[in-house]
Amino acid sequence: MSLPTYTASELATRFGLGLRGPDRTVDGVGTLADAGPAQLAFLANPRYRNQLANTRAGVVVVRADDAEGVAGTALIARDPYVAFARIAALFERKPSHAPGIHPTAFVDPAAIVDPAASIGPHASIGARSRVHAGAVIGPGCVIGEDCEVGEDCELQARVTLLTRVRLGKRVRILPGAVLGAAGFGLAMDAGHWINVPQLGGVVIGDDCEIGANTTIDRGALGDTVLEEDVRLDNQIQIGHNVHIGAHTAMAGCSAVAGSARIGRYCLIGGGAGILGHLEVCDRVVVTAMSLVTHAIRQPGEYSSGTPLMDNRSWRKSAARFKQLDRIARRSPDGGKDYE
Amino acid sequence: MSLPTYTASELATRFGLGLRGPDRTVDGVGTLADAGPAQLAFLANPRYRNQLANTRAGVVVVRADDAEGVAGTALIARDPYVAFARIAALFERKPSHAPGIHPTAFVDPAAIVDPAASIGPHASIGARSRVHAGAVIGPGCVIGEDCEVGEDCELQARVTLLTRVRLGKRVRILPGAVLGAAGFGLAMDAGHWINVPQLGGVVIGDDCEIGANTTIDRGALGDTVLEEDVRLDNQIQIGHNVHIGAHTAMAGCSAVAGSARIGRYCLIGGGAGILGHLEVCDRVVVTAMSLVTHAIRQPGEYSSGTPLMDNRSWRKSAARFKQLDRIARRSPDGGKDYE
Amino acid sequence: MSLPTYTASELATRFGLGLRGPDRTVDGVGTLADAGPAQLAFLANPRYRNQLANTRAGVVVVRADDAEGVAGTALIARDPYVAFARIAALFERKPSHAPGIHPTAFVDPAAIVDPAASIGPHASIGARSRVHAGAVIGPGCVIGEDCEVGEDCELQARVTLLTRVRLGKRVRILPGAVLGAAGFGLAMDAGHWINVPQLGGVVIGDDCEIGANTTIDRGALGDTVLEEDVRLDNQIQIGHNVHIGAHTAMAGCSAVAGSARIGRYCLIGGGAGILGHLEVCDRVVVTAMSLVTHAIRQPGEYSSGTPLMDNRSWRKSAARFKQLDRIARRSPDGGKDYE
Repeated sequence: MSLPTYTASELATRFGLGLRGPDRTVDGVGTLADAGPAQLAFLANPRYRNQLANTRAGVVVVRADDAEGVAGTALIARDPYVAFARIAALFERKPSHAPGIHPTAFVDPAAIVDPAASIGPHASIGARSRVHAGAVIGPGCVIGEDCEVGEDCELQARVTLLTRVRLGKRVRILPGAVLGAAGFGLAMDAGHWINVPQLGGVVIGDDCEIGANTTIDRGALGDTVLEEDVRLDNQIQIGHNVHIGAHTAMAGCSAVAGSARIGRYCLIGGGAGILGHLEVCDRVVVTAMSLVTHAIRQPGEYSSGTPLMDNRSWRKSAARFKQLDRIARRSPDGGKDYE
Repeated sequence: MSLPTYTASELATRFGLGLRGPDRTVDGVGTLADAGPAQLAFLANPRYRNQLANTRAGVVVVRADDAEGVAGTALIARDPYVAFARIAALFERKPSHAPGIHPTAFVDPAAIVDPAASIGPHASIGARSRVHAGAVIGPGCVIGEDCEVGEDCELQARVTLLTRVRLGKRVRILPGAVLGAAGFGLAMDAGHWINVPQLGGVVIGDDCEIGANTTIDRGALGDTVLEEDVRLDNQIQIGHNVHIGAHTAMAGCSAVAGSARIGRYCLIGGGAGILGHLEVCDRVVVTAMSLVTHAIRQPGEYSSGTPLMDNRSWRKSAARFKQLDRIARRSPDGGKDYE
Repeated sequence: MSLPTYTASELATRFGLGLRGPDRTVDGVGTLADAGPAQLAFLANPRYRNQLANTRAGVVVVRADDAEGVAGTALIARDPYVAFARIAALFERKPSHAPGIHPTAFVDPAAIVDPAASIGPHASIGARSRVHAGAVIGPGCVIGEDCEVGEDCELQARVTLLTRVRLGKRVRILPGAVLGAAGFGLAMDAGHWINVPQLGGVVIGDDCEIGANTTIDRGALGDTVLEEDVRLDNQIQIGHNVHIGAHTAMAGCSAVAGSARIGRYCLIGGGAGILGHLEVCDRVVVTAMSLVTHAIRQPGEYSSGTPLMDNRSWRKSAARFKQLDRIARRSPDGGKDYE
């Protein structure tokens, strides 16, 4: 299978970019440090600007300001990272998925699978579930009962949609993710836990992406909801009845407890936690491993935690942290006017 | 399939509740905010008491104190959340599992599966493992060698019991969980790691529940043990030889390192960590994302971490945290009497 | 199947250990507290030294200093834990894997599987992937396209290698791990996210071990790399283009963000996080749940966080943490000379 090639001028026309320098043909993409003369690279992060002088890349996508510094051919973009992403997609080799049901798959007689969907090896589809045209259900996926997979969704491998999960269009789910398992609803009765039935479902909007081994519980009453274009990285936990606004992105290992409501265009850092029954407004940034313990009503950046220190110094600060109230009270004003 | 209906008086009799107001028929449950006249709602958390005046729910389960505020029919319970959980279970549509072995499943000739167990599509059962009556092994589950699945257990989908895992009765395991993989036992030998064989197993008591993508390692020598009615949420990690007491509940993404011993009726918050070889006594509450670094010998609530702040203010506090020992020493008494 | 037995003198010869006391036969291993007269135990951690007097173990592996305290037979080792690990391996019952392809497995016609590899039930192998001799692909594993599994690798169960994953020799991967899924590369374009193609792969060196439900993303440009003998525990997240040096070990639930570079012989504690685009040098120890926010250029131990406190005291310290800058400024020198 031969690789595709493109000329710089073709790319300029196709993506509305400026062109500076001689036209050239490229057959792939790379970093400024690694790309060769037949490859295209990009400069978006200013910290890599010093690599521009020495790159061997045949074509470089840059902002107008940086075009001067390109020895070879420059493609000029308002946002070089976006332009690069679109160009790189031309060189992506996507797995091919023939429509139809693999002979090792199992489809319940009460399920409906569109003939233009692809059901992979060892996948199973449960009763009253429906898979629409263009959807790909990869190897080892399990779709339980009463689920719906929208057009052109891609469940890559070993994904589970357990119960009452409805996916919009073009949702991409990475391996090992589990959607629609029961939320963690417990009541203590005479010294034993009893389960509170989880009668709701999960609703995922168009163009969402769910990372590998991420879990999204179904609602107790009503649904757990991701609006359109929400992006979840790997190993994220979303509790029952959480609602996440459109275009919010969460990094790996973050978690949202039950019934929290996150706004639109938020960025949640890796390992961050959001307690249950809270509201976080639009355009909030939470830094990595911070814990959100109260509602956030103003856009902006929020943090908790302490800085990294060598262990010996950290032990001293940590010991003093325990004494903080007493230290404050010993200060000249008795610690009173800080409140 | 028609939905079941119940009258308020039937429910009162069945669950030992008080009844106030006219009898009514309900065909489902909902929240105070969303339920309609043919549905039943509940009030347990006082923060939702103001919704009582405007609810359209036909029947509301409340404590005696709140019965006055119910415009329609009230069912009076000592614990409305428990009563609601029991009532809601009447409306839960459970997937049906016919007994028998699905034709796509694989059962090793040296395994024993009770004829009244259900083995789903693409499941496999290894040598010397045993599945008892009423157990459900869902699609894509893998049971390795020398495991035992007790009566009426439910492994929902894509669960792995790798080696020497013994489940009591009515254990429910959500998709993607892995029990019985080797614990993280390493020894450094001449600059290379060698594995310390993990010769023990995992023992799970009756009525435990294990969340989606949770992992429980098998013991190195002896077993990793969960006593009865332990409840683990999603993405929890339990190291080798951990022992967790009965009725303890752990929220999502928490973790317990090897050989720690957790008491009974503990509540471990989301993302919390417990270091290895520690003892935590009964009835301890650990708040979300706290790290337990020493034994806990008194029941009560424990925490670590710092509060959420706007990032600009947080940076100032964080910088001062590094100076804490010096700040304390500058206080009028030289920081000495805090020790 | 009868258990193997060994005499103390055989073990001494085989592993180069000293022998003190009468020769004895053992048929298994155990802890000092639990082992019986036909079992072998060990003492490595001095905190268990007091168990030496009362152990019933027939043979105990100890350092020379502790040999005096052994009532029965002592095997004397420079590193008793290493010696014990090697001896215990003699008693480990490993699952047997017959070479060949299980009839329920699916192998793409364009994949190459060595006749001396074992492909388990419900496994699938995609186009242009290759499995070498002695490799074991356990039940429910999914190998996608363009992957390579080296000699004597073991993918235990339900492991996914999605795309362009190359494993060296003797790599062991525990159930539920996902390697080679797309990294979290996003660009915001006119209010919507677009995916940045993830064109690289994952390269895993010889003798690495990957824990249950751990995820390792493939590189965006270039590869995500683990050098030889890296040991990852369960539920770890490794972002795209991360590079981890040989012999580094990471405990459960830790995470490394994209393009970070970790040195050799590092020990990363449970739940610790390392931000993206950072370098951590060789022989760094990061304690549990610490967050690495800047490059580390000196070997040593690093920490962040605050100590565990009872919740009432913690609330006071936490409130004061918010006031720390003001407290410092009130100190006699105005907080100026700490900078």
